[in-house]
Amino acid sequence: MEVVGKSVPRLDARDKVRGIASYMEDMRLTGMLHGKLLRSPHAHARILSIDTTAAEKLPGVRGVITGKDFPFLHGESFVDEPFLAQDKVRYAGEAVVGVVAVDEATAEAARDLIQVTYEPLPALFDPVEAYQEGAPLIHENIHTYAHPPVINPVKGRNICNDFHLETGDVEKAFREADFVFEDTYTTQMIQHCCLEPHIAICLVDSEGRITLWANNDSPYRARKELSDALKISMSKIRIISPPYIGGNFGGKGGLKAEACAVALAHKVRNRPVRVVYTREEEFTSSLVRHPAIIHIKTGVKKDGTLLARKVEVFWATGAYAEKGPTVARLAGVSAAGPYRIANLCLDGYVVYTNKPVAGACRGYGGPQLAWAYESQMDDIARRLSLDPVAIRLKNAYEEENVHVSGQVLESVGLKECIQKAAEHMEWGKRPLGPNQGRGIACFERGVKTPFGSAAFVKVNEDGTVEVLSSTTEVGQGAETILCQIVAEEMGIPLHQVNKVVPDTSVTPFDTSTTASRSTFHMGNAVKMAAQDAKGQLLKMAADALEAAVEDLEMKDGKIYVKGVPHRALTIPQAMRQRYGTPATVLGRGFYYPDFMGDTDYFSLQSVFWIYAAQGAEVEVDPITGQVKVLRLVAAHDAGRVIHPVNCEGQIEGSLSMGLGYALYEDMEFEVGKVTNPSFLSYKIPSALDMPTIEPLLVEKAHREGPFGAKGVGEPGLVGTAPAIANAIYDAMGVRIKDLPITPEKILVALREKEAAGK
Amino acid sequence: MEVVGKSVPRLDARDKVRGIASYMEDMRLTGMLHGKLLRSPHAHARILSIDTTAAEKLPGVRGVITGKDFPFLHGESFVDEPFLAQDKVRYAGEAVVGVVAVDEATAEAARDLIQVTYEPLPALFDPVEAYQEGAPLIHENIHTYAHPPVINPVKGRNICNDFHLETGDVEKAFREADFVFEDTYTTQMIQHCCLEPHIAICLVDSEGRITLWANNDSPYRARKELSDALKISMSKIRIISPPYIGGNFGGKGGLKAEACAVALAHKVRNRPVRVVYTREEEFTSSLVRHPAIIHIKTGVKKDGTLLARKVEVFWATGAYAEKGPTVARLAGVSAAGPYRIANLCLDGYVVYTNKPVAGACRGYGGPQLAWAYESQMDDIARRLSLDPVAIRLKNAYEEENVHVSGQVLESVGLKECIQKAAEHMEWGKRPLGPNQGRGIACFERGVKTPFGSAAFVKVNEDGTVEVLSSTTEVGQGAETILCQIVAEEMGIPLHQVNKVVPDTSVTPFDTSTTASRSTFHMGNAVKMAAQDAKGQLLKMAADALEAAVEDLEMKDGKIYVKGVPHRALTIPQAMRQRYGTPATVLGRGFYYPDFMGDTDYFSLQSVFWIYAAQGAEVEVDPITGQVKVLRLVAAHDAGRVIHPVNCEGQIEGSLSMGLGYALYEDMEFEVGKVTNPSFLSYKIPSALDMPTIEPLLVEKAHREGPFGAKGVGEPGLVGTAPAIANAIYDAMGVRIKDLPITPEKILVALREKEAAGK
Repeated sequence: MEVVGKSVPRLDARDKVRGIASYMEDMRLTGMLHGKLLRSPHAHARILSIDTTAAEKLPGVRGVITGKDFPFLHGESFVDEPFLAQDKVRYAGEAVVGVVAVDEATAEAARDLIQVTYEPLPALFDPVEAYQEGAPLIHENIHTYAHPPVINPVKGRNICNDFHLETGDVEKAFREADFVFEDTYTTQMIQHCCLEPHIAICLVDSEGRITLWANNDSPYRARKELSDALKISMSKIRIISPPYIGGNFGGKGGLKAEACAVALAHKVRNRPVRVVYTREEEFTSSLVRHPAIIHIKTGVKKDGTLLARKVEVFWATGAYAEKGPTVARLAGVSAAGPYRIANLCLDGYVVYTNKPVAGACRGYGGPQLAWAYESQMDDIARRLSLDPVAIRLKNAYEEENVHVSGQVLESVGLKECIQKAAEHMEWGKRPLGPNQGRGIACFERGVKTPFGSAAFVKVNEDGTVEVLSSTTEVGQGAETILCQIVAEEMGIPLHQVNKVVPDTSVTPFDTSTTASRSTFHMGNAVKMAAQDAKGQLLKMAADALEAAVEDLEMKDGKIYVKGVPHRALTIPQAMRQRYGTPATVLGRGFYYPDFMGDTDYFSLQSVFWIYAAQGAEVEVDPITGQVKVLRLVAAHDAGRVIHPVNCEGQIEGSLSMGLGYALYEDMEFEVGKVTNPSFLSYKIPSALDMPTIEPLLVEKAHREGPFGAKGVGEPGLVGTAPAIANAIYDAMGVRIKDLPITPEKILVALREKEAAGK
Repeated sequence: MEVVGKSVPRLDARDKVRGIASYMEDMRLTGMLHGKLLRSPHAHARILSIDTTAAEKLPGVRGVITGKDFPFLHGESFVDEPFLAQDKVRYAGEAVVGVVAVDEATAEAARDLIQVTYEPLPALFDPVEAYQEGAPLIHENIHTYAHPPVINPVKGRNICNDFHLETGDVEKAFREADFVFEDTYTTQMIQHCCLEPHIAICLVDSEGRITLWANNDSPYRARKELSDALKISMSKIRIISPPYIGGNFGGKGGLKAEACAVALAHKVRNRPVRVVYTREEEFTSSLVRHPAIIHIKTGVKKDGTLLARKVEVFWATGAYAEKGPTVARLAGVSAAGPYRIANLCLDGYVVYTNKPVAGACRGYGGPQLAWAYESQMDDIARRLSLDPVAIRLKNAYEEENVHVSGQVLESVGLKECIQKAAEHMEWGKRPLGPNQGRGIACFERGVKTPFGSAAFVKVNEDGTVEVLSSTTEVGQGAETILCQIVAEEMGIPLHQVNKVVPDTSVTPFDTSTTASRSTFHMGNAVKMAAQDAKGQLLKMAADALEAAVEDLEMKDGKIYVKGVPHRALTIPQAMRQRYGTPATVLGRGFYYPDFMGDTDYFSLQSVFWIYAAQGAEVEVDPITGQVKVLRLVAAHDAGRVIHPVNCEGQIEGSLSMGLGYALYEDMEFEVGKVTNPSFLSYKIPSALDMPTIEPLLVEKAHREGPFGAKGVGEPGLVGTAPAIANAIYDAMGVRIKDLPITPEKILVALREKEAAGK
């Protein structure tokens, strides 16, 4: 391997260090107008009237639009969300009226002149309450919304997906168990907190053609959502990515600022309309991670064998389903953890509430579930006097186990991860200080399956290469990794490979830049495209080199007769052999996991599974309840690693988000309104809060991955919170079941423990 | 045929009528700066000193650049032109210093503060003078300039190409001829007069990567020229076309405003720099048509058989070669006209002068040569008392004749064109009024051969199609024609086919949008790409339809079992058969005329030849010398016509340019400086000047053309001037040999004739 497996300088590094990397914020277009949204102050209310007269008269205003003017619904897996509120509002922060003006200040001033009269409706904030039969309905017509067949909404209820998976006989197994553990864990609502907010610029012309520039994570997915919503053909919609996107974590998917910009641009036509979310809108009106209530009941034998587990999850998906239904499904299959358990009953209810919309967020439901199953696992170990590492190793999935999804597992590096993390922490060996504790957690994550990725590799006349791929660069390093794969496959220097920015008109189909799928899926696609291009070039060279194609190889940008270094052609020379003129060689690749799950889409089986284990060492201040995380250790099975430093960076970044989830972050509400929608009051870990993070790579090569790679984008944070909670228990003997683990909760728990001990 | 051969509404028509078509002028970029050029007032002078101090100090100025700061040379076929003048200036209008500022006014003000001291050098304006040995040298180091092998510069002379082609024994044939005619014809310098001037915006980043937005006719050719000039790899240069270009005619090729913008952008880095040519710069500093001096000597037999012809052309190419060397070559091969002449001696000298740069201009040297050979042909006919139509038919090339280039001709519609034009004019039948006359002219035009074109056809998930092609839409209708070909080939509705704007990063290689080559070359490429995509789709559908691929057909966007209309799949259904998920199907096509001329490049043989005949009817006012063109008839052999109305439009537009060339247009000079660089003083035909133009299509299908098509973009104007001159002779008995045919020249000729008659 010349390039793959090496930590080459990231291709975006110099641009970012020099400050010349270009983002959506940097884009201005000729004649551009600016849009602002008037948003609902109510969590649930009927819209009685809207008076836009004064706003329309304000000089500089170019258009005002309400839901009546643009009565369409959108949604990726559940089509329930209006571009602008229709008859009623379902959460505080929902867009009600849009204003377009010559500048932002005018748009804001006009927005403030709009009068909306509401009739408040009873609002539902608690998913268990909203789940009940007879609860007021947030969506009256849930049964009319389009969705894929695997999604199972319940008519006349607030449930947009009722997920159920069962295997074995859970009740019988509980009766046979030596111990049964039953707990309820809860998690908070958090926001993705990308540094870059949602920005979209949309141009709709007189012919109705749409051009949309947006920092959306997945241009093709957004195009489909728009095409379905507006019923216009895809070739009339062009979605163009900026070179770089300043953070994603699942929050830049779907239509957010995009929906506003599209609606407004339809109002003005032929002029681009720009919508930039404020930080407040990021919190209230973009996307959040599902708060969840998890009932978990586990039956175990004395020796620690997990016999049965029943998990019931209430996913509070907010006012619109967004990706809630698939979060529940794809996380749901892993709700019992990465363990061989013969008897399982897994239920997930995706419940509407009158709160901000929850959907994809790094880990896609995984962090909520691991919080429950890995916290409880520690309690089980302690009750059975087993070592927490040992009980996990005892039950962990192994090669060729049958997964709860029915799949026979391969490339399972879970035990290696657990062992590596434990060894690295000197588990059970190195004693800790007073009020210090050590915890471990492990988990699995599937990947969106089966969904395709296409790529083209275009060889220029001078032998340099453009990679056409719709994978967006959201900070994860995909640009570098995909170029590494192409350079390796074609034997050309990395600096001669250039990845083109996604644009649905020209870069080929990709499902999405999500779900830790890009290195694996798009990596395979670019590898196939590179092979195809290389094959064509070898064929062109074969005659001139008087050799069979099989006897040729490419390296250093040249085509050689194997073992005869002086018989070689450059790429341009090879092309000339065929054409006598400059030409383009195009390789194409389409990777589609030819893998039949139980359904076409959103299969419960996964083309690959990610496994990891995390360890935490903490020190708790018994006076203040303050937790200081001393150390986080993370062992990830990344398959064959394409770029070690980048892979470690993904893990480090992920763990820092996990740390915020564990200890700090929490969206707070008053009557459905977010009270801390800014970084002044909503706390994410700063550099000062960061412990040492030690990423450890377990390379369990995957048969089907490009050069054996798997994905590693999301899962880092799945185990962080329970690892920390378990370390806190180890330190102080208190179990916190509700995230985040605030000093207050620890102090209360310490007092309760003290009281119980007395 | 469902779409091909039909005059469907042009795809750009509605945008252009609505005023929403987007041009370079409409583009503004974030942080954009503006560049202006200080240009030489001297035709030939040494630069002694440049003082930019005051300019640099002006607030708002961001950079000032001279040739010393950017010492590179560029050129497509002869690399002799600096981005900014180096040690000396070679024409009045040459860029000497560039200024970048925050707005145009500041850039202009700063430019006016720059002091340049020159030492004037002897200037050469006449190509025959410049041709002489011992003439002052305009380029001292001509022998050091890079060029393709077929170009033949003369060291120590002002000759950048000396073209010679000989066949038979001309001197012997002259001796054997019954009559020998010897004349000198001259043509003027004209400008392309695109409505849209040259505009370029260039961004060079800290890494040296170049992004260039420009209304260049051929992004790939421009990329190569930049890559060669600056020695940077092609993947570091991205050239993006605007959706529409407002006229080309050969004038938007090479690097004009592009060169200025690139140099200036290197000075400021990381900010886009925009350069817009003024109308004056269009005339003085972009490109012009070569003025030519043509000595033509022809030996004929009494019966009108052409025995021998000797043509010697002085092409005044101005201060830099630009495409002069290839103009001389590719026009040179047709210098004797479209006739079987056994003995030929053709010489062309491309001579530097201290005048604006001449290069490609619609017809590429053809109009100059036809002016000579078709004017003389009429004199020959009259002297031999032969009918001008008859003598042309007698000598015209026919199917399977051997062309002077050595090629055996096919698809030769010349005689049909002559006959059709003559019939349509009621040649020799309908008498004309007093002072009215009728003339005819015919000609041939080759096409740049052999040069390739590539195209991709991308089928979207919903079955709509994007055509990726680097052919630019310069008003010629290529967008519509290429989409027609794809729609026809794939059996999908035209409105579902969308051509993507050229962008060297994503749309594949194309030689150029020039030389009447796009319908033929790119038409073949998109047809091949469409076939490839269709083949893939049929294969995907075959299983589900339980039919062999051969038994399937595509129409109306569906795949049918032939003869069984109810057994059909839509395109998305076919893709799902294969993948079960959305996908992109990519067809690729690379058309390269597999045709070996005498050289790799710029072959004298042509993959197809265009033939045409034009007739004119005029009325001359004997008092004022004013010529009123009553009627122009043009019969063109277009091969199979893809879009009749568009084809006729090309011919009409071309003839209107031919009319300007014949009667009005002329760049005037004082000591090398253009004195009429505006539409106030430089006259092009207006709507009021236009006669009835009657385009007639001769459809001689070409074996290798897409659906049999050939090209028709350029040649319309090749025969216009001699047809009009011949009609003037017919009316008044005077022969004008110097273009344009002004009233003054006619009056002088009438007086001379009168004097001679006395």
